Formats: sequence, structure tokens, C-alpha cells
Amino acid sequence: MQRRDFIRHGGLAGILAAGAAPAFAQSQPAINWRLASSFPKSLDTIFGAAEVMARYVAAVTENKFQIRVFAAGEIVPGLQVADAVQNGTVEMGHTASYYYVGKDPTFAFDTAIPFGLNYRQQTAWMFEGNGMKLMREFFAKYGIVNIPCGNTGAQMGGWYRKEIKSVADLKGLKMRIGGFAGQVLSRLGVVPQQIAGGEIYPALEKGTIDAAEWVGPYDDEKLGFNKVAPFYYYPGWWEGGPQLSAYIGQKHWDALPKHYQAVLEAACAYAHIEMMARYDAKNPGALKKLVAAGTKLRPFPRPVMDACSAAAADLYKETAAKNENFRKVFDDWSKFRDDQILWFRVTEQSFDNYMAMPKAAAAKK
Amino acid sequence: MQRRDFIRHGGLAGILAAGAAPAFAQSQPAINWRLASSFPKSLDTIFGAAEVMARYVAAVTENKFQIRVFAAGEIVPGLQVADAVQNGTVEMGHTASYYYVGKDPTFAFDTAIPFGLNYRQQTAWMFEGNGMKLMREFFAKYGIVNIPCGNTGAQMGGWYRKEIKSVADLKGLKMRIGGFAGQVLSRLGVVPQQIAGGEIYPALEKGTIDAAEWVGPYDDEKLGFNKVAPFYYYPGWWEGGPQLSAYIGQKHWDALPKHYQAVLEAACAYAHIEMMARYDAKNPGALKKLVAAGTKLRPFPRPVMDACSAAAADLYKETAAKNENFRKVFDDWSKFRDDQILWFRVTEQSFDNYMAMPKAAAAKK
Repeated sequence: MQRRDFIRHGGLAGILAAGAAPAFAQSQPAINWRLASSFPKSLDTIFGAAEVMARYVAAVTENKFQIRVFAAGEIVPGLQVADAVQNGTVEMGHTASYYYVGKDPTFAFDTAIPFGLNYRQQTAWMFEGNGMKLMREFFAKYGIVNIPCGNTGAQMGGWYRKEIKSVADLKGLKMRIGGFAGQVLSRLGVVPQQIAGGEIYPALEKGTIDAAEWVGPYDDEKLGFNKVAPFYYYPGWWEGGPQLSAYIGQKHWDALPKHYQAVLEAACAYAHIEMMARYDAKNPGALKKLVAAGTKLRPFPRPVMDACSAAAADLYKETAAKNENFRKVFDDWSKFRDDQILWFRVTEQSFDNYMAMPKAAAAKK
Repeated sequence: MQRRDFIRHGGLAGILAAGAAPAFAQSQPAINWRLASSFPKSLDTIFGAAEVMARYVAAVTENKFQIRVFAAGEIVPGLQVADAVQNGTVEMGHTASYYYVGKDPTFAFDTAIPFGLNYRQQTAWMFEGNGMKLMREFFAKYGIVNIPCGNTGAQMGGWYRKEIKSVADLKGLKMRIGGFAGQVLSRLGVVPQQIAGGEIYPALEKGTIDAAEWVGPYDDEKLGFNKVAPFYYYPGWWEGGPQLSAYIGQKHWDALPKHYQAVLEAACAYAHIEMMARYDAKNPGALKKLVAAGTKLRPFPRPVMDACSAAAADLYKETAAKNENFRKVFDDWSKFRDDQILWFRVTEQSFDNYMAMPKAAAAKK
């Protein structure tokens, strides 16, 4: 009811039935949602992104729109967030879409695929390339609306009990690694293992596995991997800029007032920035601690990188041939990636590389 | 008639005074602000960031909080935005803080200083380092509240009529460049010139100036510099990740309901992401066009980079000795920068550099 009508009706019954109060109720309806996170509270940066998002949603709506964030396992296991949103167990989720490549490998583009995009490139593809459009079309098949909500930046290549000096050293290596990266590495003889975060340390310690990848210095240091695996490799070529996503059940999204949809988008944007900033601010200190405690930092040898890159290219070709969803997104994505690489290597990387030179550091003092 | 008066006059005060209607009126007050941008509409990426921000503010508040965005010159000249916000001519501004180094060089940390932070590092310093705290303390002296609102990423090093092969080639070079970068280059013999965007082309064409810096391929190509200066250098070491800022007059900020403050923060975060994404998406195509039209891409020679880096370090030391505001921020900022460089050179840059290798590109096909 419009203000004009409210005034015209005048009487108390009219006011209360269709006047100010309902107008208010419609404008800022009270909504209480539950969000299932794929992450434990101990991952304060990733889990925290959903909390930051929920806090902004509440702050902007004067606590009318409340989202309660539940850690992995509290409502559903961490890897069942897509299902929980799809079947309406929860209104919302916060997850990494590449967990669901078993349903369809196309999910991975919403997070990262090996030898893919860095943080900025992934964000650019989503916001100004065709990423959001293509991924929303894909997610619609699952009754899910996706919004980018965080990124870890390029991850590390994991912890190894022994040095990796050549492609031959990958043969028979039992490594905790999943998804596309596991498939790529298995082509080079690695035996990928699926192990939950909390069980990696004892498995590495006992030698049940030879290597494990997790995230980066800040998260890895907390789990103490450096005590049982001395070699810490980089870069994590399978995750150059993995994105986290907020999932919203389509029918819940459709039922939201338009301005609440905008609230969610803006709050996710804030969380997106905040999460990347938190990792960037926290990783350097953790890296220093690890190195001081004896961790041996090693770049993957160039032939290992080349063999993995070639195996990934084969895998994509085969996957695209089998899966039309994947092919459609890959065609757009790979063109975008090639253009990004062309541009980044000019001014962005030459700036970063100059700043990283020891002499430049000396000159800055 | 105001809503409050209407209620009082209507004789329903008892029912409504502490009820839904006044709560509603207070909840989403109608606010109309004017924002002065430092940029012309033709810079659709930078000028556009303020428009994106304003659109989100309106969308989230159901058009109750409206911000009208005015281009440079419509209310005040582009370089007087800080004054206009400080003295209350407008409630809000969108600008690059380093335009105001004449007032105090400390302003520059809110945008970029030579040999400084890249996009992610600047954002991390603001959101998770001490950047926001230190800059807000500083801006409080001017009655301004600052919020990060956009970034161009590393800019290019500008257009040159002749090749720069050595430090000696900088001597006597008349270049359109301002701020700290101009001061650094003047120590190496460059004669910095202050020229507005629209006048650069004729000055370069006539040879009144020998070189000019602007932004990057997307913006530069529109102005046609390639037609009058064949050499396009990189990286723009004076702007590794220049940030744009929203300015809000302190008294207007203080008078906002808390949830409108949160709306502004979230809307600026959305615009921050959007602007960077837009540049990343648009620069590659523009770069290709420029190169196809004959532009000669050149990296600055290493000795030029080193001489500029050393001159910048001297300038910072002298500025810190003279200016306590600058010294306080520089001490924190430079420690943060050194840590960021340490971290980025490990996994982030080795990922980007591998992706940029021709052989990797071939393997990806």
C-alpha cells in the first residue's frame, strides 16, 4: 500500500491492516536463514568469510536479515553443502564449488582448475567476463544461485617427506590431494588420497602418505605439517586463485525482496575482499615462522611443472569431449585466461618481479 | 508534512509513536547526497566506480539513500574534491588521495607511492593491516572519512617519443607526470609537467613535451597517444596498485544511521572489486589493438629502475625527517610492504611467472 493510500484511509483499522506497519514489514522483512559452511571454525580465514558476510547482511538490515553460520558437520558434512542447499535443508551455503566435480567437472570453474586464473583474473572473469553468467546458468540446473565470496590467493604446493627432484619422483607418491589436481597427478604416477584435514598430520607422521596439500603458510602452520614433512613446495599450480562461493537456494533467492538480493551481493563483495586481505596479511608471518623452524622451501622443478601442465591440458581436452557443460565454459574461460596472461606479464608482473629483486629491496632502505 | 507530524496530528500518537511507523521512518531515512568525482565521464572505469557504488547504495536502501555522482568540473574541479568535502560543498567525493600531496605528502599512502604496493597488497594493508586505522587518523585532521573504492592495478610507465635506453636519456626529458613520481624523476633530470588529460595529446604531438603518463592500455588507447609517441614503457613503478577513495564529510558520516554507514562500506567494497575487474577485463583487448597499430612495448631498462628506486628511497627518508605524519605511516607501511614482497615472491609470483612462460602457454593448448 502506498503512503498516499494510507493517508486516505485514515482510520485505525486501515492503518494497521494495510498501512505503516505492513509497509515496514515489507521493506525490511525479518528473515532468518541458516548457512552451512564446508569449513571448520579453525580455518578462521575461510570460515570467517561467511561470518563477515553474515555480519554485513545483519548490519545493513538492522538485524532484520539474519544468517546463522554453521561449521562443517554441524548441520551437514562439509562436502554435502551443495546437496543441502539444493534440497532445501539450509537456505544458504559457503563452500568451494570444486568439491562437487564428482557431480559434474564444470563446478570447478567456480573455484579453480589447474594452471588456471589467479585471484584477480578469477574475479575479473566472474564480474566482468562471462564467468557469472555461465556459472549461474550451470548452477541453475541444481537450483542454486552462486555469488563469489572469498578467495585464498595462490596456494602452496604442499608438504613432502622427500624432495621432488624430477618427474620420476612423483611415481608411486601417496599424496593427499583431490579433484582435478589429483587426476592430473595420477597421470604422472601419484596415488591421490582423500583424507580429511584433521587426519593429515598422523598420516604424514606414520608415513601412510608421503605428501599432502592443504592451503598456505597461515593454515598449514596451525596443523604442524612442518614437523613431519620438511619440504614445502610452490607454487600450488592447481589453485592459482581458488574462489569460495556463497550458495543460495533458488526459491529462497527468488522470494527475497530485490534490495535483500543486493544486500547479499554487497555483503559477499565485502567478504571477498576481506578474506583475501586476511590471508595476505597473515601468510608472511606464518611463512617466516615455518622457515625459522627449519622448513625447506622449494620451487617445483620446471620439468615437473611442464609435465603437469601437459597432463592438465590433455585432461581438459578429454573432459570437454565428454561433457558439453564443461566444454562450453572451458571455451570461454580459456580464451579469457590467455588474454589475462598476455596483459599481466607486461606491467603487473614486471612490477612485482622488480619489487622482489634483492637489489631493489636494498635500494629501498 | 513530515511523517512525524502526520502521526502527531492524526491523533494516533499513543499507538504509533513507539511503534512501527516511527521505527520505519528512522530505519530508512531519505537521504540525498551529492558526490564530486575527480574524474571525467570518459574514464568510464574510474568514474564508473562511483556510479556502481551509488547504484548499490540505492538498491540496498530501496532508493531511500541517493547519491548523485557529478563529474570533475560539474561542481568543483577534479583536483579540489578534498576541499569540497572538507568545507561541506558536497557530502561526498570520489578521488585519488595522492592529488593532495601538496597539502601533506601523507595523502599519497591512501593511493600509491613509487615502488610501493600492488593492488592486493594495498587492499590488504587497508583492510587487514594498519592502513585503514592510520589513514583514518590522518584524514580526521581534514574532517574526512575515507573508504577504499576502486583500484586501477599496476599502471603503465607512459608514452615516449624517443626510446629510453639509459638513465642519461632521462636528462632534460619534459614529461607529463605529477606528485611523488615527478619529484623522483626530477632528481634524475626529468622536467615534470602538470597537464590536464585533454591537453596531453596536442602537447605530445607538437613536441611541447617528450613523454606523458596516463593510466594503462584501456584509457590510453582512447586518447590516441600511440599516434604521437611510439614507445610505451612498463612498469609504471610509481603506481603499482593505486587505490581510489570515497570521501565522506565527517559530520555527514557521524549523522548517518549505523546501518547506512555499513551500506556505504559494503557498496564501496562492491565497487572496489568491480573497478579492478573492469580494468583487467578491458586492458588485454586494448593492448592488442595498440600493438597491432605499431606501438612499441618496452620495459624500463634495469639501471633506470634502480636509479629511480634509489631516488625514491632518498626522497622518502628526507620527507619522513621533515614530516611526522608521513614518518608514522611510512614506518608501518614499509614494514608491511617488505613482508608482502617476501610472501608474494614465493607462490603467487612463481605461479604467475610460470603461466606467462611461452612453453607453458603451448602446453595448455
